[in-house]
Amino acid sequence: MKNRKILLSENEIPEKWYNIIADMPNKPLPPLHPGTLEPIGPEALAPLFPMELIKQEVTTDKWVDIPDEVRNIYSLWRPTPLYRAYGLEKALDTPAKIYYKYEGVSPSGSHKPNTAVAQAYYNKQEGVKTITTETGAGQWGSALAFACNHFGIKCEVYMVKLSYDHKPYRKTMMNTWGAKVFPSPSEATAIGRKILAENPNTTGSLGIAISEAVERAASDEHTKYALGSVLNHVKLHQTIVGQEALKQLEKAGDLPDIVIAPFGGGSNFAGLAFPFLRLNFEQGKNIRCIASEPSSCPKLTRGEFRYDFGDTGGMTPLLPMYTLGHTFVPAPIHAGGLRYHGAGVIVSQLLRDQLIEAVAHDNLEVFEAGVIFAKAEGIIPAPEATHGIATVINEAQKCKEEGVSRTILFNLCGHGNFDMKAYEDYFSGKIQKHELSDAEIKASLAQLTTPTI
Amino acid sequence: MKNRKILLSENEIPEKWYNIIADMPNKPLPPLHPGTLEPIGPEALAPLFPMELIKQEVTTDKWVDIPDEVRNIYSLWRPTPLYRAYGLEKALDTPAKIYYKYEGVSPSGSHKPNTAVAQAYYNKQEGVKTITTETGAGQWGSALAFACNHFGIKCEVYMVKLSYDHKPYRKTMMNTWGAKVFPSPSEATAIGRKILAENPNTTGSLGIAISEAVERAASDEHTKYALGSVLNHVKLHQTIVGQEALKQLEKAGDLPDIVIAPFGGGSNFAGLAFPFLRLNFEQGKNIRCIASEPSSCPKLTRGEFRYDFGDTGGMTPLLPMYTLGHTFVPAPIHAGGLRYHGAGVIVSQLLRDQLIEAVAHDNLEVFEAGVIFAKAEGIIPAPEATHGIATVINEAQKCKEEGVSRTILFNLCGHGNFDMKAYEDYFSGKIQKHELSDAEIKASLAQLTTPTI
Repeated sequence: MKNRKILLSENEIPEKWYNIIADMPNKPLPPLHPGTLEPIGPEALAPLFPMELIKQEVTTDKWVDIPDEVRNIYSLWRPTPLYRAYGLEKALDTPAKIYYKYEGVSPSGSHKPNTAVAQAYYNKQEGVKTITTETGAGQWGSALAFACNHFGIKCEVYMVKLSYDHKPYRKTMMNTWGAKVFPSPSEATAIGRKILAENPNTTGSLGIAISEAVERAASDEHTKYALGSVLNHVKLHQTIVGQEALKQLEKAGDLPDIVIAPFGGGSNFAGLAFPFLRLNFEQGKNIRCIASEPSSCPKLTRGEFRYDFGDTGGMTPLLPMYTLGHTFVPAPIHAGGLRYHGAGVIVSQLLRDQLIEAVAHDNLEVFEAGVIFAKAEGIIPAPEATHGIATVINEAQKCKEEGVSRTILFNLCGHGNFDMKAYEDYFSGKIQKHELSDAEIKASLAQLTTPTI
Repeated sequence: MKNRKILLSENEIPEKWYNIIADMPNKPLPPLHPGTLEPIGPEALAPLFPMELIKQEVTTDKWVDIPDEVRNIYSLWRPTPLYRAYGLEKALDTPAKIYYKYEGVSPSGSHKPNTAVAQAYYNKQEGVKTITTETGAGQWGSALAFACNHFGIKCEVYMVKLSYDHKPYRKTMMNTWGAKVFPSPSEATAIGRKILAENPNTTGSLGIAISEAVERAASDEHTKYALGSVLNHVKLHQTIVGQEALKQLEKAGDLPDIVIAPFGGGSNFAGLAFPFLRLNFEQGKNIRCIASEPSSCPKLTRGEFRYDFGDTGGMTPLLPMYTLGHTFVPAPIHAGGLRYHGAGVIVSQLLRDQLIEAVAHDNLEVFEAGVIFAKAEGIIPAPEATHGIATVINEAQKCKEEGVSRTILFNLCGHGNFDMKAYEDYFSGKIQKHELSDAEIKASLAQLTTPTI
């Protein structure tokens, strides 16, 4: 009987996070103040984040120690298993060797707690009493609720009203871990009250929810804000995923030719890929790292590299990123975690320097891939994860056509237990192929008045 | 950092199932034909089950080989982790050492695939093309759909219409693995059509769903039926759980004083407890094994030991069991897997011989226990599992009161990802304490005309 799973013991949980900035040939350009267009320093972030996370946001140190207390909470589910996908290989009849790192074993069901626990820890260290955040479908809010509960920090989640009403299970999950969940816009903030007064029946948006969470954090010295992707420190925390995978593949006597992960803001991809890119930098390896994005939100494959705002409302500093324009509204696909207009600055710079690749997949193609995977391997993947699986299937088919065996690793970043409605829509034919025209992208980018690069 | 998880490698998956009948001082009484009241032989089961499962149903061999192909599919999620519950111990401030075996890592999220995979395998071996079953909330149907998919067997699930309409996620899960799911009563069977003609708006019942699944199996020679608990062979397959836990505790240098598991039909409890009862039989150990049942369906603690039917409709042979009467209708608690009027024959005999214990917990008490667990350990437990947790908490508190450290092991048989509505009802005060009067139980038992023992 061939072993499917490669496991690590808890004392093999990595002791440091890997900071790719130290190894990048071209460092990311600085964020700019939107008024002066001058580079801004870390102090601008102080009202929202604890100092240790701000330091991590700007550090150029190659390794950052993981506190013992964070590793201790990680051990509730980490190290996560690495699977050899024998079932998928057989279903695809491919000579490729396919491995997947399974992050769905965390209590909230995805990779998100890797950074949520770290962020909650540093907030606790600096005496923060409450952390606020926004959530769309609820994956990030759940992870932060779980993390805050462990450190006895209050957690306030502003959940887009449409999701709050339509996806109550995620809300209840957050409640179970003690978080307070507000339908956004809410009466709890000035911006929320203003929007409700103007439009009492609004279903909200992620942009509004961010504004509410930020307002609450900025208005109370014991309250801070947390973000689940995009920022450098979030990517840093996620590198635990790739580091474990590297150890596990070494145990299997293997090294990937191709590393694949879904792409939303970048932390999922960064988490798995950066520790393998390190081998490219340090040892001259040539591991291809591919980011898989939805074709309805194709900032990496069809966006522009320029300065843009990180949020819809234009409140953040200007960031150098691949973007579709901060007012771009992606189609309402089920992979809510990938519906973001821009890419984090590190990943954007890496793509610009052709050190990583990106591909886009259509909405129908990814569910087809998800069902193939579920039948072959058992686990039903989250809609975000199916994007990576679609890329894996394409690469495995190329191996077959070329008669070459390559080793492929991908991030199964979460299970689909809370996303069965998406599969139901797929089975009942409600999911349509969505073609985004060049004109639509051009029109969105044309609205930008931010600096080009 | 203390290790939370005790892991086994795939080659440590047990190679045999343990059959407790071989060690029982008093063997279970025989099943009786309801007409003649004569003992019936295994041949009576032939229209419904493959011969190898019927042999397992009646075997007195102490060990039954697990086929390699079954172990190979088990390896998709087995061995499951054993956790030391440091978080729960701290939350309860108890000197007890608490361990839990976590079966929620299976693709369908519970222990049910342990027997579903084995049953699908033996059906495949005997050329069966289709397996039918019934499901209430969907946990068992999901497990069988998953298992049938792996062996290329068609799976037909008759899902109680109320659940079909109210719990669509489980249905979609089954569809993802290729199963056909019918709202029961359905147009697919004679009994379904008859009931629909009489009452087109019926919401169905588990009894009707069983009748439909059995009718389909009995009417086609290539179609068989599968059951998810109660029967001896189902309990046999589940002993993989306790055998793994025993190995894991040996690695930790520990042995439980108390073993606890939720009780519905008996396979969950049997799976964890029987391998520890073996030590009582073989080595004279004194491990207490406690079955945790809902106080709204208390067959073990308040039922009568006598012959009764296994199904509501009175179609099965008569079985010697603790029962509340086969027409007893339990309150609609959220732990759907525990709403069964009787207990499997092996467990019933063990309880009668005082070789195991049973306790009952109220509906409110178990959700309180579930939330304590979720906050302390991260994982949100299935409502069925919270019954065991309530017993664990009571025993841990006794340890504290007595100033004694005991080692407690329990079966965290599944996660609550598909049960968040139950938690929502709990948080919003919709779950009421349910007192079952002696008169209600007496009235239900008074309807029985089956033989007493």
